Amino acid sequence: MEKIDKLRFLMKETGVDLIVLSPGANLNWLLGLNPHADERPLLFFLTLSNSAFLMPELEAESARQHTDINFYNWTDASGPLQAIDQLLTDLKGFSSRTIVIDDTMRADHAAIVQDKLLNATRLFTASTIGTLRMKKNEGEQRTLRINANQADIAMESAWNMIAPGITEEEVALAIQNSFSNQEASPQFSIVASGFNSAFPHHQTGSRVLKEGDVIVIDLGGKFEGYASDITRMATLGSPPKDYTLVHQIVDDAVQAALAAALPGETAKNVDKAARDVIEKAGYGDFFVHRTGHGLGSEIHEPPFITSTSETILEAGMVFSIEPGIYMPDKFGVRLEEIVILKEDGPEILSKLSRKLKVIN
Amino acid sequence: MEKIDKLRFLMKETGVDLIVLSPGANLNWLLGLNPHADERPLLFFLTLSNSAFLMPELEAESARQHTDINFYNWTDASGPLQAIDQLLTDLKGFSSRTIVIDDTMRADHAAIVQDKLLNATRLFTASTIGTLRMKKNEGEQRTLRINANQADIAMESAWNMIAPGITEEEVALAIQNSFSNQEASPQFSIVASGFNSAFPHHQTGSRVLKEGDVIVIDLGGKFEGYASDITRMATLGSPPKDYTLVHQIVDDAVQAALAAALPGETAKNVDKAARDVIEKAGYGDFFVHRTGHGLGSEIHEPPFITSTSETILEAGMVFSIEPGIYMPDKFGVRLEEIVILKEDGPEILSKLSRKLKVIN
Repeated sequence: MEKIDKLRFLMKETGVDLIVLSPGANLNWLLGLNPHADERPLLFFLTLSNSAFLMPELEAESARQHTDINFYNWTDASGPLQAIDQLLTDLKGFSSRTIVIDDTMRADHAAIVQDKLLNATRLFTASTIGTLRMKKNEGEQRTLRINANQADIAMESAWNMIAPGITEEEVALAIQNSFSNQEASPQFSIVASGFNSAFPHHQTGSRVLKEGDVIVIDLGGKFEGYASDITRMATLGSPPKDYTLVHQIVDDAVQAALAAALPGETAKNVDKAARDVIEKAGYGDFFVHRTGHGLGSEIHEPPFITSTSETILEAGMVFSIEPGIYMPDKFGVRLEEIVILKEDGPEILSKLSRKLKVIN
Repeated sequence: MEKIDKLRFLMKETGVDLIVLSPGANLNWLLGLNPHADERPLLFFLTLSNSAFLMPELEAESARQHTDINFYNWTDASGPLQAIDQLLTDLKGFSSRTIVIDDTMRADHAAIVQDKLLNATRLFTASTIGTLRMKKNEGEQRTLRINANQADIAMESAWNMIAPGITEEEVALAIQNSFSNQEASPQFSIVASGFNSAFPHHQTGSRVLKEGDVIVIDLGGKFEGYASDITRMATLGSPPKDYTLVHQIVDDAVQAALAAALPGETAKNVDKAARDVIEKAGYGDFFVHRTGHGLGSEIHEPPFITSTSETILEAGMVFSIEPGIYMPDKFGVRLEEIVILKEDGPEILSKLSRKLKVIN
């Protein structure tokens, strides 16, 4: 079944009358379109029987090269309000009882839609398109494997750069160059050294690496529209006191989550498996985030592996398992695998060991 | 006066009770903070007398290094709803009659705020913080001049790359490398060749340049938090029939807009000056966008130079003047200057001539 048919089937099942998307992962997944996005609303409207674009005049000629869907153009002079009125009239959108808005749509664009449909119940894409995007087909899985391999290579480039006197930013640059050299686009590169390793989303900066540093490296790129994401641990010289113990606990948590991840299980059970290991070891207060997130065309997408998620895991879903322990003013440890869920359990995409990389 | 005092003065003047910002240009302008942004709502709340952050637990330790403002933390397990209730109670936000939401906030995050304050009138940042950001101080102007100089150098790198057999993407890569080499981050690089030049926001692709091509190059980077933006025209060999005439009309339109841009004038008069030139020459239907946009920490920000904008221009404002003529299946011409408005008129930041660059 085509993606658009699947989506309309879901709309019918869930009583959704209208879906409105902005340029981004959902539109690209649905139509393979990636139009220019800026402060001018460019929105795709989908009903059970029809579809149309609200289109800034200056984008129309270019967008027309990629789609035959009807455009309702508006100019910088007129603004979008008349065009959206005509569009909603023609698509019978004004009678919508339930609408779905793209999660990542700009708030000012979403307001234009919502103000026209004040009586409609408003949902977001995470609970509609998001659920369709969770299961990856064979082609998507292949692309994600290629991405994972690129990320492994980028991680090795980072390790090769680590030395006393080098800054976090210089290691990050090595990661970005590695992705670029592989024709992937670098997406993020967290290099968190010393005390910074205790910040899960440390903003990579000018700190200079030195002997004894614990270094969290969490990186990802995009290739052919899909993403990678991996976290590994390194130290410059011997790890500090307690490090080996904490690393082992985090790795045990990864293994427990991997063992729990089976089709038919809930996402929250996978989170629980990892969390139980860390809590039993006495470090529960230092595991300050969910166990994982889906990965696909977005770096974070459903399914989310949280302690409250009732999502039932299915073969074909792709997600991270990435427990961590973060001890302020000491150090942090996170280990992250991306897995494709198979009938008999998770396939780990990275070929890199989760062992500590000691750099001398 | 501090930015936050200026903003509160404006809030009082305009009857705004609460401003809610997400990570991005407005928050960075106001507080110099650039926290990690993802699908977890991280929001800054400002009232006339108080302020606070809604803060994902895993970001809190890192964000705390940069600010003393109160945090209302929430975890991946609990979600943000209880924390936002407590925050709004403590800040007396529930009695807000008028609230301002960040334009670029994700729609799902904005919904969390709006659903708590259903009876409040909702405005967006463009009409509040946006108006404060329009006038750039001396330091900002200096940084924008540096950015403009970097963009000139990137434009010359692009011209040096142009040759028969080279793709648009290869020219774009030269632009990106030029910015990177200048320690700026590349933001966009439109290389629109041949018929593609008739698309104002052409998506740079694999088209191979050949003799006789018209090439629009529109590029920008960011350095020290501020942006650049410039458009120039090149041809590979002799320009096609009519090109020289159309180029001259666009340049005349630029000059007319430059002459009209004076403190005290409306933005729409500047647009009209450019548009009149193009309309009188008989090409009005092919000028499909506004004459310009503000430039600062965002590439597009107020003031917008449109045919309907009543914004009164003031010394210190920074904006583009960029009329264009786009003839489908033929070619397009756009010339773009960034100017700082001075008491006696615009200061053009680029040192590059607007003449056609003929590459042989």
